[in-house]
Amino acid sequence: MILVNALLLGVETSPWMRSEYGAVLHAADTAVLWVFVVELGLRMFAHRRDFFRDPWSWFDMAVVGIALLPATGPFAVLRILRVLRVLRLLSVIPSLRHVVTGLFRALPGMASISFLVALLLYVAAVMSTNLFRETSPQNFGDLFTSLFTLFQIMTGDSWGEIARGVMHEQPLAWIFFVMFILASTFIALNLFIAVAVQALEHEGDERRAAGGEVDTLVLTEVRALRAEIAELRAEVGRPTVKDSS
Amino acid sequence: MILVNALLLGVETSPWMRSEYGAVLHAADTAVLWVFVVELGLRMFAHRRDFFRDPWSWFDMAVVGIALLPATGPFAVLRILRVLRVLRLLSVIPSLRHVVTGLFRALPGMASISFLVALLLYVAAVMSTNLFRETSPQNFGDLFTSLFTLFQIMTGDSWGEIARGVMHEQPLAWIFFVMFILASTFIALNLFIAVAVQALEHEGDERRAAGGEVDTLVLTEVRALRAEIAELRAEVGRPTVKDSS
Amino acid sequence: MILVNALLLGVETSPWMRSEYGAVLHAADTAVLWVFVVELGLRMFAHRRDFFRDPWSWFDMAVVGIALLPATGPFAVLRILRVLRVLRLLSVIPSLRHVVTGLFRALPGMASISFLVALLLYVAAVMSTNLFRETSPQNFGDLFTSLFTLFQIMTGDSWGEIARGVMHEQPLAWIFFVMFILASTFIALNLFIAVAVQALEHEGDERRAAGGEVDTLVLTEVRALRAEIAELRAEVGRPTVKDSS
Amino acid sequence: MILVNALLLGVETSPWMRSEYGAVLHAADTAVLWVFVVELGLRMFAHRRDFFRDPWSWFDMAVVGIALLPATGPFAVLRILRVLRVLRLLSVIPSLRHVVTGLFRALPGMASISFLVALLLYVAAVMSTNLFRETSPQNFGDLFTSLFTLFQIMTGDSWGEIARGVMHEQPLAWIFFVMFILASTFIALNLFIAVAVQALEHEGDERRAAGGEVDTLVLTEVRALRAEIAELRAEVGRPTVKDSS
Repeated sequence: MILVNALLLGVETSPWMRSEYGAVLHAADTAVLWVFVVELGLRMFAHRRDFFRDPWSWFDMAVVGIALLPATGPFAVLRILRVLRVLRLLSVIPSLRHVVTGLFRALPGMASISFLVALLLYVAAVMSTNLFRETSPQNFGDLFTSLFTLFQIMTGDSWGEIARGVMHEQPLAWIFFVMFILASTFIALNLFIAVAVQALEHEGDERRAAGGEVDTLVLTEVRALRAEIAELRAEVGRPTVKDSS
Repeated sequence: MILVNALLLGVETSPWMRSEYGAVLHAADTAVLWVFVVELGLRMFAHRRDFFRDPWSWFDMAVVGIALLPATGPFAVLRILRVLRVLRLLSVIPSLRHVVTGLFRALPGMASISFLVALLLYVAAVMSTNLFRETSPQNFGDLFTSLFTLFQIMTGDSWGEIARGVMHEQPLAWIFFVMFILASTFIALNLFIAVAVQALEHEGDERRAAGGEVDTLVLTEVRALRAEIAELRAEVGRPTVKDSS
Repeated sequence: MILVNALLLGVETSPWMRSEYGAVLHAADTAVLWVFVVELGLRMFAHRRDFFRDPWSWFDMAVVGIALLPATGPFAVLRILRVLRVLRLLSVIPSLRHVVTGLFRALPGMASISFLVALLLYVAAVMSTNLFRETSPQNFGDLFTSLFTLFQIMTGDSWGEIARGVMHEQPLAWIFFVMFILASTFIALNLFIAVAVQALEHEGDERRAAGGEVDTLVLTEVRALRAEIAELRAEVGRPTVKDSS
Repeated sequence: MILVNALLLGVETSPWMRSEYGAVLHAADTAVLWVFVVELGLRMFAHRRDFFRDPWSWFDMAVVGIALLPATGPFAVLRILRVLRVLRLLSVIPSLRHVVTGLFRALPGMASISFLVALLLYVAAVMSTNLFRETSPQNFGDLFTSLFTLFQIMTGDSWGEIARGVMHEQPLAWIFFVMFILASTFIALNLFIAVAVQALEHEGDERRAAGGEVDTLVLTEVRALRAEIAELRAEVGRPTVKDSS
């Protein structure tokens, strides 16, 4: 039934349909919303405390809650956030849930390098604002514009054009741009590798656990064997002593 | 002989040759097609049931079948699909066959994340259509145009220009664009890593099998040894008992 | 306290604030600078020789030293380098310190391939200057301009436009551009893999150390066992001899 | 001395210097060339047969040989190929030699997927020429132009502009462009992973060899132990029999 709701939501979000069958869609939208509210209420009743411990429940509540808020503020923004209800698909389909959980697990490993990228962007933005403010006000006019331009350069989009514009008046500007591109590419490369190594590590730990099990089994067997040999030696030793007595 | 056919096909697909030696090429094309049909028939006869179990046979049949369809519909489209016959090289050359099989094996591992990318594109397209429809109708005029523009932004092509056009009237639009680029880059990064980990896992499993064999051999040997020691102990114990009696 | 200093530095680097609260910010800046100098002095006194052995101390000294230099030279450049003080965050936050150390450890593994990239850029720049100087003086006018243009092409930015401009007069220029893009992509790919393999190797070494420990433990145990068996055999052999005597 | 030659070559390839100190540079160039020829001759004399077995010798001979060819043909092309002499650095510096050998070892693993990319480009070029010839003659006018445009799209450069130009008249063209980008990205991704897995495999084989050694050592020890126990049992059994007799 949730899949049907998702489909309804999909149709409802299309702007053409909304203008033609507005009333029908509004009714369907309200119906879907009520189904969601009732479903959330039932799950809340069924799981009680466990419901609030699961972060996915909070996610569902937030997504449904947005649609329940009255449209008293700026109307456009509320209508837009209603689209987020499509994201309920994430919490409903198990394999997507698994993927999203995986994505969130990858985030902490990126925290330090992401902060480094932010620091690089900030320092470069302050430098470029001071250096190129007069030469290229549309790209480096103030700190915010510089940040946006440098983010654009970081993604490699039309940086040649921007750099050539500045270099026309300040020929040494290439030092800044080339250094910035090399630094951001290098840090991005390491960010990527950090995430990849983390994923492979996670993978490898599970594999190693299976492999290590056999190794540990061998170790246990060999130690038991040694204990047995020691006992055997003691047993063999004793009668020998008796014999010689 | 199939290689000669492939070459003929290559020449035939070039548009210059077709206009000059049209008749010759048409004859060669028909000849090649008949060779393919006869070859398929012979293989069908030789392998019987096994022929229909191999997905490559179905691929060959589809590729040849397209050329056999009468050109009664729109002519251009049929002439274009005839080019797909070049893809028969895939099923003929074993190493290519191996690579294509590998590519298809990588697809299921990407399914969940690909769906997540599609969901992100869809949600972002609905939001951007609602937000930027008036500001930039050529890029975000309707849902489909927004989807195309966002796909373009996802590939990193000229997004700066598009974003600056919108930001000129809606200065806060950068939040949407930067969030979208970060989200799509992050998901793409994870898609990449998922495929890489899968490939390395497949690789590692084969390697591990060889390594694990030695470990299991050791375990078997040690266990056999322990059983032997136990027997020895029993044997040594008995005569000792006899001695003491 | 260092975190407060970092925040102050952040506010101070913003160009809007500087123009409005210039005097206050200058005072705060001087105060922060003195705090840094005193802190450095104390650390120098506390650690003595060890202080100069740690590369991070040299980094801190350089960053603080830049701000102490008199602004007698070109003013703009000095004001810009003061921003580098924000980078003290790198040496203060341990996890960032760890990441930066990791980045620097990755550098030697890249040295050879980076030199290869530089060589490729240089050779291609000399060739393109000779070939395209007359056709496209704004892109390939002299060696330096060619180097910049080829670096831009290497990053994949608007190379189509540049290449089409040249190919309009020299149709065979595509050979140069396609070869250059293939070569630089291939070398960049290998640079990437070199760094990734190095990171995984480092990771694997640590993991292997733990795994290898169990293996070595088993080997030690088995050898000890064999020695014990040899002793047992000697012991069993002797009384048997006594028996038969 | 070869390093000095390389430096001289570097200076000589700069176009400014050539115009001003042309005569001096020409003399130095000739001197360097003779040094190279003599060096090659000496190495050929010293190593005899081994000289011709080493592929690097052939590389050196080709690079030097190009400069010896008379400039009777088109002068520009010969002057350009003289730059390749800088590549002698590759064969002279051992670490670069190692890297280049590594790059060439990575090539066979890419062969199949590279051929697949070429096939994709070819099939797509034939299709796009047939489909978009009239709509966009400057991008898809003939097979060669289409190949170049599709190569450009594959690198992700300004494809949005090209696609929008075509879609203005043929709205369904997005299907072709999106499919082509997805297919080429997917194949490129797999090309990348194939090279990475190959590099890691090579790495892992060396590591595994060390790890496997310990495992095999354990197996040998355990088997020797078992043989010894069997002998012990035989020895213990015999006197026991004697005792009971």
